[in-house]
Amino acid sequence: MLERFKVPIKEQVRVSEKSLRRTVTAFFGKMGESSEDAAIASDTLVTSDLRGVESHGVSNMLSHYRNGYENKKIKPRPNWRIVRETPGTANIDADNGLVVFLGRHAMQIAIDKAKKVGVGSVTVFNSEHSGAIGHHAMGAAQQDMIGMVMTSASARVVPTFASKALLGTNPIAVAAPARNEAPFLYDAATCSVAMNKIWIARRLGSMLGPGWICDNQGVPIEESILTPESDDEFLLLPLGGTREQGSHKGSGLAMIVDIMGPLLAGSLPDMLSNVDNVDRKQSHHFTAYNIEAFTELDTFKNNMDRMLQMIRETKPVSGEERVLYPGLIEYEEEQERRANGIPFHEEVMTWFEGLAEELSIPGLDTCEENIKSS
Amino acid sequence: MLERFKVPIKEQVRVSEKSLRRTVTAFFGKMGESSEDAAIASDTLVTSDLRGVESHGVSNMLSHYRNGYENKKIKPRPNWRIVRETPGTANIDADNGLVVFLGRHAMQIAIDKAKKVGVGSVTVFNSEHSGAIGHHAMGAAQQDMIGMVMTSASARVVPTFASKALLGTNPIAVAAPARNEAPFLYDAATCSVAMNKIWIARRLGSMLGPGWICDNQGVPIEESILTPESDDEFLLLPLGGTREQGSHKGSGLAMIVDIMGPLLAGSLPDMLSNVDNVDRKQSHHFTAYNIEAFTELDTFKNNMDRMLQMIRETKPVSGEERVLYPGLIEYEEEQERRANGIPFHEEVMTWFEGLAEELSIPGLDTCEENIKSS
Repeated sequence: MLERFKVPIKEQVRVSEKSLRRTVTAFFGKMGESSEDAAIASDTLVTSDLRGVESHGVSNMLSHYRNGYENKKIKPRPNWRIVRETPGTANIDADNGLVVFLGRHAMQIAIDKAKKVGVGSVTVFNSEHSGAIGHHAMGAAQQDMIGMVMTSASARVVPTFASKALLGTNPIAVAAPARNEAPFLYDAATCSVAMNKIWIARRLGSMLGPGWICDNQGVPIEESILTPESDDEFLLLPLGGTREQGSHKGSGLAMIVDIMGPLLAGSLPDMLSNVDNVDRKQSHHFTAYNIEAFTELDTFKNNMDRMLQMIRETKPVSGEERVLYPGLIEYEEEQERRANGIPFHEEVMTWFEGLAEELSIPGLDTCEENIKSS
Repeated sequence: MLERFKVPIKEQVRVSEKSLRRTVTAFFGKMGESSEDAAIASDTLVTSDLRGVESHGVSNMLSHYRNGYENKKIKPRPNWRIVRETPGTANIDADNGLVVFLGRHAMQIAIDKAKKVGVGSVTVFNSEHSGAIGHHAMGAAQQDMIGMVMTSASARVVPTFASKALLGTNPIAVAAPARNEAPFLYDAATCSVAMNKIWIARRLGSMLGPGWICDNQGVPIEESILTPESDDEFLLLPLGGTREQGSHKGSGLAMIVDIMGPLLAGSLPDMLSNVDNVDRKQSHHFTAYNIEAFTELDTFKNNMDRMLQMIRETKPVSGEERVLYPGLIEYEEEQERRANGIPFHEEVMTWFEGLAEELSIPGLDTCEENIKSS
């Protein structure tokens, strides 16, 4: 994560993983989910916070989900079901359920199919938010498979040369296991920067980069600072930023996600739901590739270790500290936060206190040594 | 394609598709391929030229392949075989064969598996160049499937923050059928710009964009013009160009291709072959998703048409002519070139004349009306 998104240390309080899991599980229980699914949903969110991906953690997502449950957009205990199936594929109607936990089930169906026929591919439609899709992809990696997940989101991204938003931030995640190295975990929006990260930058008053956003006519906005008071009339640019820098590639990747998610599921991408004036739901794609169906698992993991180590140990370009691969820094963060707790902004702690009181759920325990600078 | 890569009209001669197919098929026959595979290889290359993708067409690739056959890097009539197989997957040892035609076979195996179990996924290792992988992906789209192809190439791309090239240009292609709209066909390197396009820019003396290349220490080179005399000491930057603009995403996508291709096939990505001092071969990944395994084909195609039409008809941002989706402009070019012939630079025509004479194969027939300005 870029430094500009880091919460300043003096405003942090540390909360233990165990305490956060308990509170968030209780939250989803209160929203009406089964205890099993509430724990899975909690795992998805808390893992994001452990990995330093605050954009998809509890502070950014819980109140959003709460609104969804309250205005009946999100259906608790959804009656999700497979509507079409073959030995290697399934299409799931999510019945307006939250993919924060349904993603676990969808990926497990893909994994079970991949155990039998080598590869399993599952689409999910008529659903709500997924949380960090990398977490669902990791479910496959933890079972010695390569996991690939895509999510089609609401239209906030302007295709190359267009004057309006047609595409979602449409992230793609791929996870693959290694032996001793931290697993490979790519999870990135196909736009220049995820909307959740813009929200955080706006909350913190951080500077935006060039090629990240444009005005509501598609004209790029140069470096600028958004504040909580800034209007919402900005849109996102595809990965690449400009055509010269390859934005047509980011734009095309976002369209691929709309094809692999909603269209393959027989549903509609947001740009069409929008004009049809039908409920704007999300669709997702989960594929698990069984490594042993292709080669020896040992060979694969050994080569993964060698590749990841080589990337990690490559001499950095002048002025930079180290070379990273996707998932490495998040893995390191996870070790640190499991040991020392998850840092939250004091405003978030206050919000949690209110939530716990209101819903009669356990509040957050701070770690013994909160890290506060004087 | 950017204007800077266009061959100036006054130096063009037009060759008929039929004539080009005949000459290129004869070329591969002379190189020792079977008549069936020679025709497939010719189809892969000529289709690139028809679609205006000169970077992967005959003028850029034939002499490269000829060198490969002559120095025994490429084996004609390879004894390719499936070394591991499940109902949904296969891993193919290509026996040093050219994936320009083996790609057709690999994708067909994936398609046949997808007909049976809904999805088919095939890796290929120990192989040579693929030609434009979008062409192989289209093989699936023409059979009412979504095709996905990835190719792991030799290390020319510097990962974010690194000081040396570890990654290939590692393209990803996805093709999906529509009903009346031109099919969706994404085929793009995961670097800012494909190496083949840099070669063309160098041949034409065109200006390079910022964030495209860096020096051999990983330091970005700003806008510049390469000439045929420029040294080869430049490397490519990942899609995004800089970390701020998302190069870690392009970098990660290239690593995904190394995982889905060589590593999943039990082989090595170029960065490891290189240090092991083993033969540097290419690996590839082909997946076919049977649309009918997920939803009604009619529904899918109707929705594809609606989405692609909406993108195509969106008002462009001020200063631009139109909004494109991947494959649209290439489809239009294909119609025009099928009718009017494929334009070649006069130098290419001269090179072909020499080749035809030397190999005793039919030369190229120019179209009756060559387009030459006075």
